[in-house]
Amino acid sequence: MRVLGIDPGLAIVGFGLVEEAQGSFRKIDYGHISTSAGMERCQRLNVIYSNVRLLITKFSPNEIAVEKLFFCKNVRTALQVGEARGAIFTAAARENTPVFEYTPLQVKQAVAGYGRAGKKQVQQMVTQLLRLEEVPKPDDAADALAIALCHLQSYRWQRLTSNPSPKKP
Amino acid sequence: MRVLGIDPGLAIVGFGLVEEAQGSFRKIDYGHISTSAGMERCQRLNVIYSNVRLLITKFSPNEIAVEKLFFCKNVRTALQVGEARGAIFTAAARENTPVFEYTPLQVKQAVAGYGRAGKKQVQQMVTQLLRLEEVPKPDDAADALAIALCHLQSYRWQRLTSNPSPKKP
Repeated sequence: MRVLGIDPGLAIVGFGLVEEAQGSFRKIDYGHISTSAGMERCQRLNVIYSNVRLLITKFSPNEIAVEKLFFCKNVRTALQVGEARGAIFTAAARENTPVFEYTPLQVKQAVAGYGRAGKKQVQQMVTQLLRLEEVPKPDDAADALAIALCHLQSYRWQRLTSNPSPKKP
Repeated sequence: MRVLGIDPGLAIVGFGLVEEAQGSFRKIDYGHISTSAGMERCQRLNVIYSNVRLLITKFSPNEIAVEKLFFCKNVRTALQVGEARGAIFTAAARENTPVFEYTPLQVKQAVAGYGRAGKKQVQQMVTQLLRLEEVPKPDDAADALAIALCHLQSYRWQRLTSNPSPKKP
């Protein structure tokens, strides 16, 4: 089972590919897609869309996990993040790859064990769970790996319990 | 000069194609793209993306005009509209068609003559300016025609004055 975790944004989209095999997690790749504020917004979205499609064709993830937002500083930020998510979701649909969403609380709970864990604690747990030599950079890539791990953990729990499946967007 | 006006939304995307030739406006086509709440969100965005690309290839608009949002009832609505806009903007970029944005105030000012005009007044003006036999339905299509007319009016004004170009998103 291979998962592409995505932390969406217009300036930076973090991504992290994680595989679970024989009960352990393995990092495949991680990084970020960045678009400059100097570009036209449609072109920025096109860069995001194209690169997400490229990641899917290159790494063939079985599923995609994306951070779900409930809160934004203001409507402008929500619209901007929404636009980036629109480009990402469209890319996923074009490649027939199912998308699942998790709130930051669910990600923290799954990776660090409790929902109020700090950013640094989550990053340390990602580093430990994937047996990495250092904390992944940038933060957006570390967040994306955490989202991928959260999705894989949620599958583990499903196998152990009779919890319902995570909700598709 | 042919313009595709778009009123974005996840459930309904209104569209309206208007051409200006020899000083008068002409309706080419209008309608809406609808997606059902029962579909997965990624698939809904894919339907929007594919149909906007189809409209562009079928009608070859020179430019696209989209309604710009400043205010939303809540973050959830803003994210949802943002996602639909993300799919539309990506489709426009894939087809190399420039996008311009106008606020509802600008649209009302351009079409009805003042920014506080009501929905019905704007619809009446759209019907009159395009010499249609009846008010276009649904409302989203009438709104999209108004946005296209706003963009064409803004070009007229530009030719008459030295106003700067409308801002690309």
